[in-house]
Amino acid sequence: MYETIIIGTGAAGISAALTLKQLNKDFLWIGTKNLSYKINSAEKIRNYPGLSNVSGKEMKEMFIKQINDMDIEILDKQVTGVYDLSTHYAVLCGQDTYEAKTIILALGVESIKPVEGEIELLGQGVSYCATCDGFLYRGKDIIVVSSSKEFEHEAKYLASLANKVVYIPLYKDIDMDLANVEIIKGMPKKISKENKKMYLELKDSKLEADGIFMLKAAISPAVLVPGLEAAEGHIVVDRQMKTNLNGVFAAGDCTGRPYQYAKAVGEGNVAAHSVVNYLNNLK
Amino acid sequence: MYETIIIGTGAAGISAALTLKQLNKDFLWIGTKNLSYKINSAEKIRNYPGLSNVSGKEMKEMFIKQINDMDIEILDKQVTGVYDLSTHYAVLCGQDTYEAKTIILALGVESIKPVEGEIELLGQGVSYCATCDGFLYRGKDIIVVSSSKEFEHEAKYLASLANKVVYIPLYKDIDMDLANVEIIKGMPKKISKENKKMYLELKDSKLEADGIFMLKAAISPAVLVPGLEAAEGHIVVDRQMKTNLNGVFAAGDCTGRPYQYAKAVGEGNVAAHSVVNYLNNLK
Repeated sequence: MYETIIIGTGAAGISAALTLKQLNKDFLWIGTKNLSYKINSAEKIRNYPGLSNVSGKEMKEMFIKQINDMDIEILDKQVTGVYDLSTHYAVLCGQDTYEAKTIILALGVESIKPVEGEIELLGQGVSYCATCDGFLYRGKDIIVVSSSKEFEHEAKYLASLANKVVYIPLYKDIDMDLANVEIIKGMPKKISKENKKMYLELKDSKLEADGIFMLKAAISPAVLVPGLEAAEGHIVVDRQMKTNLNGVFAAGDCTGRPYQYAKAVGEGNVAAHSVVNYLNNLK
Repeated sequence: MYETIIIGTGAAGISAALTLKQLNKDFLWIGTKNLSYKINSAEKIRNYPGLSNVSGKEMKEMFIKQINDMDIEILDKQVTGVYDLSTHYAVLCGQDTYEAKTIILALGVESIKPVEGEIELLGQGVSYCATCDGFLYRGKDIIVVSSSKEFEHEAKYLASLANKVVYIPLYKDIDMDLANVEIIKGMPKKISKENKKMYLELKDSKLEADGIFMLKAAISPAVLVPGLEAAEGHIVVDRQMKTNLNGVFAAGDCTGRPYQYAKAVGEGNVAAHSVVNYLNNLK
């Protein structure tokens, strides 16, 4: 069992990982090795102390160098759930389970609100994870809603399994030219289920399929961690970054505005120190 | 009258100034142009995201370059008092007075009365921060002076790295039972350095080591700002860095532990955004 599991590889997760490594803690860090896609898209960052007028790409290079210098590993998986086992926590990544005494949630922030019916039908025809649930739709018809270009490879993986895919990109510059993929533009309004069939309503149409995948960067925290207190889409924390769940801490955009690198690294650092204090008090 | 006055040129003050400049705010920034003396004395910083394994001096160079790049001025004076004039605040620097609608306190943390030689040898064998400098003393002999029970876990962390620790508690109810830790009671009188060895003089003895850690609490900035609420030497703030005084915000070490650059820049950033929100609500 790990002392802590950090979930998320944005600025807050990076800060927490660097600090826990320096403090010789035994932790697992789960998230995309490519770090947050938001870092890539930042044109110029001028107010992050220490890096004068860098691009997001330059900042990302520095982060990756530092992670390598400190000999820190990232487990490149998508977390599908965090469960309270009363003495510790279990983190699920599809079929795999990892256990830890404490959790640091550095999930980033969901830019797109859940569609009506989405949360209610999660696990009953709606999925967030291509790797985890794709095999359930072999030879079937699915709808894939994607919030970013970075999920195109997941959509292609789904297309390799499914009979037919209706792909709904919520971004520009689409690169998805496959025989069994139809691209439809539009903003999802509502998800419903009837007679084992899933329905997605757009503005002027209603699509039918066997399953619906919602591919997005950040999953609503309360969906990921049952029992977690959230308000207006953000995890509720105190000054020590404690959540309402004992041993669960949160940091970065998922705890609220301002959505800034400086704020995120500060909170990641505080969360790491709070984990250490918490573990010391367990002894 | 300024929109805000930032007091202090450590990491929190720098972060607040960069953000307010980027947001085109009209502010005055008061403090030493040499930045915080603590930055100079940090030997190696490894867990500040974006700057991999820099010395305090290198970090300071980058901060100064960035301040110049952004065309920000520092008024190099010492603040002697901050007074609430009900509609706004007056900041006194000896004979000079400056007025602003809001204040950001980025005061750092003042140690209790330093021992003779302590300030002079800071960063040259004397350290205030186990997390920051502990790894420099792997396998070496150190002296740890601790003003409070709350620092015992930091001392234990140091003991996990060092060959031998002489622990000098300045409090009762000591819980420090480790094979390589010797507890000595006494009040430190003087620190000196000779031939790369550090010496700490007590009343009747003189101890030798490779490094000396001084773990101590802080004094209250309530002396500087009458009416300011403080607890255990730290300014009381909420998640938006608001103090109990309307329009007064605080950030960095003065708001509490951990005393880390990442935490300070995060809080400076949040304080700057809170000032902007506060000014918007005045209109």
